[in-house]
Amino acid sequence: MNKPVTIYDIAKKLNLAPSTISRGLKRHSSVSHRTQERIIKTAEEMGYRANTFAINLRNRKTSTIGIIVPKLNSYFMSQVIAGIEGVVNNAGYTLLISQSLEDVSKEIINVQTMFDNRVAGLLVSLAENTKETSHFNRIQKQGIPVLFFDRTPMGNDLPAITINNESAGYKVTKHLIEQGAKRIVHITGNQLSNVYRERLAGYRRALQEFKLPFDTQNVLINDLSEQAGIDAAHSIIKLMADGVFVANDHCAASCMHELKHSGKKIPEDIVIAGFNNDMISRIVDPALTTVDYPGFQMGELAAKNLLAHIAERIDINLTSNIILKTPLLIRASSVRKI
Amino acid sequence: MNKPVTIYDIAKKLNLAPSTISRGLKRHSSVSHRTQERIIKTAEEMGYRANTFAINLRNRKTSTIGIIVPKLNSYFMSQVIAGIEGVVNNAGYTLLISQSLEDVSKEIINVQTMFDNRVAGLLVSLAENTKETSHFNRIQKQGIPVLFFDRTPMGNDLPAITINNESAGYKVTKHLIEQGAKRIVHITGNQLSNVYRERLAGYRRALQEFKLPFDTQNVLINDLSEQAGIDAAHSIIKLMADGVFVANDHCAASCMHELKHSGKKIPEDIVIAGFNNDMISRIVDPALTTVDYPGFQMGELAAKNLLAHIAERIDINLTSNIILKTPLLIRASSVRKI
Repeated sequence: MNKPVTIYDIAKKLNLAPSTISRGLKRHSSVSHRTQERIIKTAEEMGYRANTFAINLRNRKTSTIGIIVPKLNSYFMSQVIAGIEGVVNNAGYTLLISQSLEDVSKEIINVQTMFDNRVAGLLVSLAENTKETSHFNRIQKQGIPVLFFDRTPMGNDLPAITINNESAGYKVTKHLIEQGAKRIVHITGNQLSNVYRERLAGYRRALQEFKLPFDTQNVLINDLSEQAGIDAAHSIIKLMADGVFVANDHCAASCMHELKHSGKKIPEDIVIAGFNNDMISRIVDPALTTVDYPGFQMGELAAKNLLAHIAERIDINLTSNIILKTPLLIRASSVRKI
Repeated sequence: MNKPVTIYDIAKKLNLAPSTISRGLKRHSSVSHRTQERIIKTAEEMGYRANTFAINLRNRKTSTIGIIVPKLNSYFMSQVIAGIEGVVNNAGYTLLISQSLEDVSKEIINVQTMFDNRVAGLLVSLAENTKETSHFNRIQKQGIPVLFFDRTPMGNDLPAITINNESAGYKVTKHLIEQGAKRIVHITGNQLSNVYRERLAGYRRALQEFKLPFDTQNVLINDLSEQAGIDAAHSIIKLMADGVFVANDHCAASCMHELKHSGKKIPEDIVIAGFNNDMISRIVDPALTTVDYPGFQMGELAAKNLLAHIAERIDINLTSNIILKTPLLIRASSVRKI
């Protein structure tokens, strides 16, 4: 490997003092415009990389926004990132993304990497097994704003953008009950995550309101993957359920597909609903009832709030939660021709 | 905002010389073990951030691998990234990801950001409008290896991992012809991209072999989105086509859905095939014939080659293309009961 080009190399090449090179690169007025141009052109040709670390320290900011998400493999998350990217690009920032892969130990390393890269701000959706958030303290202490979205810390006042997962879970379950379902299975993820815990709470509240028994057997906790949906379909048949509420569309679609292949009619035998309004919910047959989770808007709002904080127009640490609306989208998978 | 904590702040707090702090943080033997511990503990409590920039320069490497992709919104790309992430994490590297959003000017900024962050290596899938790759020269000149995958530069010897897109496009089209299709529409993306250009070439070769006319009317170039699939369905009906080959599954699924809603029977009236073997191809009804593009393996292979180069076990610049196999997966959407 080559050694990085320094201002000394450029100075030698141009037969100028290193300090002239340094001032020329910064377009300091003590260096003539013509010399500035020569220095910058030569620096570019030689592959000189500005010490952005030092420049950033001086300017007290970088032009990078960091984002840490659990996984990049969902339509929802790609929508959130598209929303963030649009806003930060317009403001002249570059986005750097990393995944925790649902593991807090990797999340801690990711925070460190973002910190070392001196991001101007950090947007975070937590890993499902993150119990506490002290690994964000150091970055916050240094004045780098952190804003959580979707998967947010529990039991503290950190600024966050969320939806009302409890209310959304309640609305879905109530709808399935109103369509005649009496034994509703709920397929969900790790209960350390606020998102899945609250959807389950909403499911319980609806059952209670309609005086249907809550049975832990009917709550299937898995990784909400395509394979988990296939496995869950067989449990649903054994449990003789007539309704299914799945905490994401991806898993709901594969579950419905497997139920159909096992001879069940949707919605006649079993009504089913998902969550997120992913593209797949519109394409499957029958179309899947779901909750419209506005990922793009959530991303835009998160980015705008973070940038406003960086520009010192608002202090996000004074903001409590921002909560987005989530309409229920009723489609053929849950509507019985009664 | 707070000022970053420096070794001077720690020195003041512990009433020690700054140089002792510096040596203590590096666990230099001239500082007693007990003092080292005190220094490190205090540094952590105060939120001290090691000058990793300087450390990395000294060690001539960073622990970060950069990746630049066109868009994060596909199942294929999430599979590639999962493959890369597994390999680099095991080797102790963190992955930083950025999107070009199919725009070369953003790709240039992303390369600069990765360069400034001193990545140890860079994995790149090009934006669809990237015509030449001189923006990677500077980073390569500095000894930072760059390896391309999927969307790779044309007409040069840069190391790349690809599939044989021409051969895959040929196989799909030949299969549709063998199922009785005589007027096959091809839906594809920007022809600046090697991927789409080669699939079209394969489509043309199959038509030629079976003495079917090639008609530019039958080639629909769009952004391969969900909406593009819906719009294409109406063109297909007007063109009275009896076969469709779409360059991705996402667009193929929404196109097939719209064709069905417009009264067309699949595969009786129209045979259809996609590309990638995304989850959606298995879930739609009928299941979609597609090309198995092994994204996870491509990611693993790209990461392994890059790390081997960094460890100086191989020189990827001596490697020509690595080409992965892509079997045709024949499913109900293209099989006529003849």
